[in-house]
Amino acid sequence: MTDLGYSAAPDTTPTRRTDRVGYDRDAIHAAIDEAVMCHVGFVVDDRPVVLPQLHARDGEVLYLHGSSGARAMRLTRPDGLSVCVTITHIDGLVLARSAFNHSINYRSVVILGIATEVTDRVDKAKALQLLVDGIIPGRSPAVRGPSPKELAATTVLRLPLDHVSIKTRSGPPADDAADLELPYWAGVIPLTNLLPGKPEPDPTLRSDSAPPTHVTGWSRTVQDLP
Amino acid sequence: MTDLGYSAAPDTTPTRRTDRVGYDRDAIHAAIDEAVMCHVGFVVDDRPVVLPQLHARDGEVLYLHGSSGARAMRLTRPDGLSVCVTITHIDGLVLARSAFNHSINYRSVVILGIATEVTDRVDKAKALQLLVDGIIPGRSPAVRGPSPKELAATTVLRLPLDHVSIKTRSGPPADDAADLELPYWAGVIPLTNLLPGKPEPDPTLRSDSAPPTHVTGWSRTVQDLP
Repeated sequence: MTDLGYSAAPDTTPTRRTDRVGYDRDAIHAAIDEAVMCHVGFVVDDRPVVLPQLHARDGEVLYLHGSSGARAMRLTRPDGLSVCVTITHIDGLVLARSAFNHSINYRSVVILGIATEVTDRVDKAKALQLLVDGIIPGRSPAVRGPSPKELAATTVLRLPLDHVSIKTRSGPPADDAADLELPYWAGVIPLTNLLPGKPEPDPTLRSDSAPPTHVTGWSRTVQDLP
Repeated sequence: MTDLGYSAAPDTTPTRRTDRVGYDRDAIHAAIDEAVMCHVGFVVDDRPVVLPQLHARDGEVLYLHGSSGARAMRLTRPDGLSVCVTITHIDGLVLARSAFNHSINYRSVVILGIATEVTDRVDKAKALQLLVDGIIPGRSPAVRGPSPKELAATTVLRLPLDHVSIKTRSGPPADDAADLELPYWAGVIPLTNLLPGKPEPDPTLRSDSAPPTHVTGWSRTVQDLP
């Protein structure tokens, strides 16, 4: 049986523009993997807190990285933390003839669930390696691995990909028929994100150290360059 | 008296890396204005929800744009909605000799407060124009303005910039002294975001309509190109 995607649920069904929502597993995985960072929302004293975090995906699990002292990390103990993890890509500005029909081409993944701390040392070391290699593929063999003290100073949260949805807009503007003859330019300004520049060597690096291919070849964006 | 910035408060003081937090007004305004989109967190039935929204700043007020049917917009009525608005720029990947000292160069603004609906028609029309021009400077004179029905279908939230902070990391990696002689490359991969590509005309546009300068000259990024 073909796996068509995640299941829709009340909490992953948007209250409007339901035509833009999807549950396709490949599209959701791709949007998660293309991002370096996500925004993690949680509740503290009945109020919302939203903080950026690094993430990496392993199959149907999202790992979130933080310091052991960070608030979200401490709040997960011992029972887990209700989170909303949102990952948004802005793919373009959509310019219509009317102000009202202006829009954004975007992909936004929303993941709801209970994040729990990865406490097993072997699992944690593996998740941290995945975070390094997820953000910079090929990096983990070219670094000193974590010491026991460093492992203890880091917290990794685990969030299952279960209640997940993606909202997407793409394509040209959708002007009202009555506006099509107006003398205004309409179209899309495509946007590229996470475009790498020339690597900047650490000032303490020996001058004969050329950056390795995992540095010079780093690329994350899927948009065409201008 | 020089205005040095926003005041620190318990809810805008991070629980760790307090050396990275700041309250400088200019730096915070610049980071808000450089972004097209923010992540808005709010609480629904004791659970966090984080959604992307378009924003524009007018002095010490942040305007958020949404459909009148959207959940966050409906929840603001009549008493306002407790929100956490977070805006993050990823400026670079920081590669250290040790896995542990890997990091991200970033700027992340966190705004806490009560968002309220802009109900006055004149204020709302002005805020919508600001949103159009904030995202695409010079656009509002080159579009059809909103009809009364379109105005009613749009909701604008107003959030005062009061409880605001910015967290920043920049510069080279901070390796442990004992790691400096390790044979690994260290440095920064700078990243550029929101880089505009060639404008894509709407297929229904007359072929002789060249894009205006507010389209061809659109630029938001402050990073140098590679």
